Amino acid sequence: MTVIDDVRADGVTLEQIQTLFNPRTIALIGATDKSVWSLSIYKNLLNSGYAGEVYLVNPKGIEVHGVQSYPSIAALPERVDLAFVMVGTGVVLQVMQDVADAGIPAAVVLTSGFGEVGAEGARLEAELVRIAQEGGVTILGPNGNGYVNLASNTIPYGLAISGTIRSGGIGVGLQSGALASAVIQLIQTRNAGLSLLCSMGNESMVSLTDVMRYLVADEATKVLALFIESIRKPEEFREIAQAALAAGKPIVALKVGRSVMGAKAAQAHTGSLVGDDAVMDAVFRQAGVIRVNSLEDLIVTADLLASTGPLPGPRVGFVTPSGGACELISDRSEDEGIEIPEFTPETIARLKEVLPDFAAARNPIDVTGYILIDGTLAIRALETVDDDPNIDEIVYIAELPHVVADHDVAVERFARQAEVMRNTKKPVIVISNTLVDITPAGREVAAAAHFPTVVGGMHHGIAALGAAIRWSEQYRAARAQSAAPAIELEPLEVESAPGEVFAERRASLLLAENGVPTVPHVLVTSADQAADAAEQLGCPVVIKLHADEIAHKSDIGGVKLNIASADAARTAFEQVVEAGRTAGVAEPAALVQPMRGAGVELIVGVVRDPQWGPVLAVGLGGIWVEVFKDSTLHMLPVTHEQVKEGLRSLRSAKLLEGARGTQAADLDAVADAVVAVSELAQRLGDRLESLEINPLLVRGSDVEALDALITWR
Amino acid sequence: MTVIDDVRADGVTLEQIQTLFNPRTIALIGATDKSVWSLSIYKNLLNSGYAGEVYLVNPKGIEVHGVQSYPSIAALPERVDLAFVMVGTGVVLQVMQDVADAGIPAAVVLTSGFGEVGAEGARLEAELVRIAQEGGVTILGPNGNGYVNLASNTIPYGLAISGTIRSGGIGVGLQSGALASAVIQLIQTRNAGLSLLCSMGNESMVSLTDVMRYLVADEATKVLALFIESIRKPEEFREIAQAALAAGKPIVALKVGRSVMGAKAAQAHTGSLVGDDAVMDAVFRQAGVIRVNSLEDLIVTADLLASTGPLPGPRVGFVTPSGGACELISDRSEDEGIEIPEFTPETIARLKEVLPDFAAARNPIDVTGYILIDGTLAIRALETVDDDPNIDEIVYIAELPHVVADHDVAVERFARQAEVMRNTKKPVIVISNTLVDITPAGREVAAAAHFPTVVGGMHHGIAALGAAIRWSEQYRAARAQSAAPAIELEPLEVESAPGEVFAERRASLLLAENGVPTVPHVLVTSADQAADAAEQLGCPVVIKLHADEIAHKSDIGGVKLNIASADAARTAFEQVVEAGRTAGVAEPAALVQPMRGAGVELIVGVVRDPQWGPVLAVGLGGIWVEVFKDSTLHMLPVTHEQVKEGLRSLRSAKLLEGARGTQAADLDAVADAVVAVSELAQRLGDRLESLEINPLLVRGSDVEALDALITWR
Repeated sequence: MTVIDDVRADGVTLEQIQTLFNPRTIALIGATDKSVWSLSIYKNLLNSGYAGEVYLVNPKGIEVHGVQSYPSIAALPERVDLAFVMVGTGVVLQVMQDVADAGIPAAVVLTSGFGEVGAEGARLEAELVRIAQEGGVTILGPNGNGYVNLASNTIPYGLAISGTIRSGGIGVGLQSGALASAVIQLIQTRNAGLSLLCSMGNESMVSLTDVMRYLVADEATKVLALFIESIRKPEEFREIAQAALAAGKPIVALKVGRSVMGAKAAQAHTGSLVGDDAVMDAVFRQAGVIRVNSLEDLIVTADLLASTGPLPGPRVGFVTPSGGACELISDRSEDEGIEIPEFTPETIARLKEVLPDFAAARNPIDVTGYILIDGTLAIRALETVDDDPNIDEIVYIAELPHVVADHDVAVERFARQAEVMRNTKKPVIVISNTLVDITPAGREVAAAAHFPTVVGGMHHGIAALGAAIRWSEQYRAARAQSAAPAIELEPLEVESAPGEVFAERRASLLLAENGVPTVPHVLVTSADQAADAAEQLGCPVVIKLHADEIAHKSDIGGVKLNIASADAARTAFEQVVEAGRTAGVAEPAALVQPMRGAGVELIVGVVRDPQWGPVLAVGLGGIWVEVFKDSTLHMLPVTHEQVKEGLRSLRSAKLLEGARGTQAADLDAVADAVVAVSELAQRLGDRLESLEINPLLVRGSDVEALDALITWR
Repeated sequence: MTVIDDVRADGVTLEQIQTLFNPRTIALIGATDKSVWSLSIYKNLLNSGYAGEVYLVNPKGIEVHGVQSYPSIAALPERVDLAFVMVGTGVVLQVMQDVADAGIPAAVVLTSGFGEVGAEGARLEAELVRIAQEGGVTILGPNGNGYVNLASNTIPYGLAISGTIRSGGIGVGLQSGALASAVIQLIQTRNAGLSLLCSMGNESMVSLTDVMRYLVADEATKVLALFIESIRKPEEFREIAQAALAAGKPIVALKVGRSVMGAKAAQAHTGSLVGDDAVMDAVFRQAGVIRVNSLEDLIVTADLLASTGPLPGPRVGFVTPSGGACELISDRSEDEGIEIPEFTPETIARLKEVLPDFAAARNPIDVTGYILIDGTLAIRALETVDDDPNIDEIVYIAELPHVVADHDVAVERFARQAEVMRNTKKPVIVISNTLVDITPAGREVAAAAHFPTVVGGMHHGIAALGAAIRWSEQYRAARAQSAAPAIELEPLEVESAPGEVFAERRASLLLAENGVPTVPHVLVTSADQAADAAEQLGCPVVIKLHADEIAHKSDIGGVKLNIASADAARTAFEQVVEAGRTAGVAEPAALVQPMRGAGVELIVGVVRDPQWGPVLAVGLGGIWVEVFKDSTLHMLPVTHEQVKEGLRSLRSAKLLEGARGTQAADLDAVADAVVAVSELAQRLGDRLESLEINPLLVRGSDVEALDALITWR
């Protein structure tokens, strides 16, 4: 989908979106028996049991889809709430004028041939938007299939839907029209409940973030599921995501274009840390958005979360009818960071009473094939686990029947289990063995038995469970944080010119003055001063040429390490100053710093992403950043905990634990320093182009910036 | 499943397995209306259209499942080919004696209560096997559900199967009885074709490898799909896997227990390189076994390969009806190493004629929603891509209908596409959008239209495609290699005592004599000799204490680096010898070696895995092996190409490319040295406990072992 930014209009209100999605009357403009779209929309509206009036508009005023049409919008018997426009591209502008003139507040424009086909189409789209804005019409589309609102039984949607969709808590926003059918089918075959599904089209007025805002406010919606090609309003996206987290509504997102990782043209080191998709990952992670990589995970994860809401913790008790399932579950749980704790002795003793002699009373529980003889085995095991204090929630592996021989027998069997699950103290999540359809027959049994959601297969289900557990932790952290008073950071004005660079002394003074631990230094202009400084700081020291204009001082002999005495400091001063003169520095001075021992060297940088703004990157120096691009990214502001979490997620994280005789890094001390850097960057605001500390030396709890570079805009 | 090794009997022949799986008559021993198993087996045999006679044996001789039973095995009217034993545990031994006495050659024992329940059961199982062996009976089980042989319509299988299974090319071996139902359902809902499915049970006689051997020989089977808990006969497994690769029959395996990574009690460094599951991975990789981590991937991958056989190459042309699909495909293809090349100008020109104006003629092709108007769009695009020389095979994204309104119309539509696909020059792989069932209605359409296999969803399908492409490359490499004459390695006898350790000089002499590039050294016993050696080798040199009994020589001052002159060599000799004396070495000598400059340091080791025998481990030294356990494992023998592939798979691989100013490692030279090590290890055979080179120094094409340690058994 081509992004033509200039035709997008901001400022669609929540109220406008609510009107768009909840019309009391609908007119289909351009209805004709010759169009598959027209027929599909009409059928969808009929089948949905839509309570309002549907009018058809056809210029000939003939019978269409078996009912009498109106020859024009003006001829409609009342002012409708929604115009569904599917006329030819050539007449869309005129029709939109008619829509506006008729006072219709909202329109879905199915017609294509706009921004998505090139510059000429983009001009047409801009004109369409102008007419709509002037006429007070909110447009969804163009080049979109409309939406499915099951909360209000309103389906002005342009593609055929076969079978019914269950009404429920998943709200879907899709930036791909054609995949909508696949998503709907997946929702149906999972027996998942849908609140609203919106096919975005070109987003000329209503954008994905507008739909997200609606879904967060919508009572019927418990979870948002998004298929994202590009986020057009980054700030809005972050705000709404935050609101969703606060409201306890998870967002699950499939963001495509992972593989397009254009390298950024930014400052040498830190710039290379930032790739577009890595920034996207950081945005999602920090905003509490669950990122998935398949349509299956999108729907399965949303389905699970729509049924459970926030989960109490990471410790899961599993009840399965098979040893093979136990092993698969163990493997997958380790992948996903799910804990499978041991049961308490009490639970084990009680389980032994429930299970056959040859079964092992351990987590995950294999109730064994004996379940064929005693059908209550699994559910009784579940009741036992419900009392175990080591367990936060229970996973129950079970299948709805694919084919139902005797409906009543099946309903009774599942109703018995459902009853037990309704009365547990802990959340119970039912997961099937594999991702096979919940068939119409199975759906009927589930409905009649009030059987809970059956999550789609151990493979995707345990991925979903892991995501749900992590999201729940974030949700709790966000609630705890929102309880604490927010700290307002005061803007900091620094005298600087656009493009100016603060190296070494000026950069490190700015850092030191603003709470970032920085190695001390003394500026010296004579050998005597150098000797004094060495004594004052304590040997060994480092003596460096002080000249911002020279980027790589060690290359010209401008850095002397490990100076062991005041006398040596004199010599070193003369040498670096001479090196400076040779390199053309008029009045070279030098900096004297204490020489630090070995430690872990981090690079901490803040760079500006063109879309998302300042991004904080933290990683280990040397090969880790240069060769392995191993860094953790954060959007600002960032919390102490998020920085620690990020450090632990580095591929090189083990080196922070004190490998090979070096001291383990105190992650709290590192996080404090990094948060100080990020707060400074926030206070510097838009003036800051980039800030890099390289290295931030970590020796246990001693954390110090040894060198820094700041570039101004 | 408890493994009780001593009750397992070797030497079940292929002929015995063939008899087991293809009986002309079957007796169900212990048939009773009271057992769900008995009923299921009987129904399965009836429903399968089994051509042979089925007799029921019930001690009361009453009517069972509506037919007259026989009171004993002896009373049967003929000698049957297969006894399906489902009597109580207490009478199994007697029944097995009766089976043997009746001359029945094969038995499935469904009854449980044997090795899987403990020591007492294991004794019973041993007795069962003894009776069977003496009586010439081949047992599948006990504690197994039997098998489903669709190639011969024989389903002596103890669990209910609802609906039909299509006969086809997938042969399944399962070490989990309870998951078999999930696997069968997955096969049905994928409309995949099954040749044979065998539920292994306790494997007291027939083991998974026996079934594999049958499947490799079986004409109906094109692909093997295995659910593995443990491989009991490692050598057989490797041999059969090799035979399967040579025969062009892929093996897809889901091996559980990944997370149980017990650390091995082996030599400090190299030992830590080897984890059980990592060895399993190496075995699979080298044997051409495709490892998957979910039941979905197991069946989807087998389904794809059963329909395509070996694929010609990694360059895929994609035809899709959606831009969203194109993006998902691009992301997933990058994950899987699948190439999506650009089309030739000719293809692009022809595509432009086929596609609507606003569609982009590029790979992956989005034929756009216009396909709703022109249903031939996608298949015509496919025909165009078929002529593109940049493309090895074509993926066509399409769905079979979930619900069929008009069977004939649907059949015609799919038959038209199927016809085109039959006539392409390149393999066409049809993949659906998501993993939803192929419903019975969809199956009927596919069958009537002769529509090819529809692989289950882009997510799993592209994983399967990636695996298939990699397997196909291995298949071709194996064929090319088998064409070359095999090199016989001559055993090498080395005088050594069990537990003896060859360090430094003896180890490096052995390596050097056997083709492993090794840094030269001179053994010296006086300061003069040391000085001569330094001159002869060229300074700088290293001088080390020569004393096998001292493990960490540098700790006691026994190693002097960077000796720059003959004089310095004298002093260094005196120092290391003195250090040796202090440490209690009676007549210390020293080794003089040239001092090498910086390079990439590898560790190459051969250790003995208790199950799989010698394992070769290669990795970078320092943090890479110590902290990150980053190594590539290979079973012996290993090829030059496999070693290179392994080096490229290291997480630290980029450091071999010459990061940070070091010279890029010549991987061919490294692989030559590593293959030389592996051949030496093979020649040393069972006598070798472990061999470690640390480091193997790599400076461009210069590869040298600087130090080594060999331990004997």
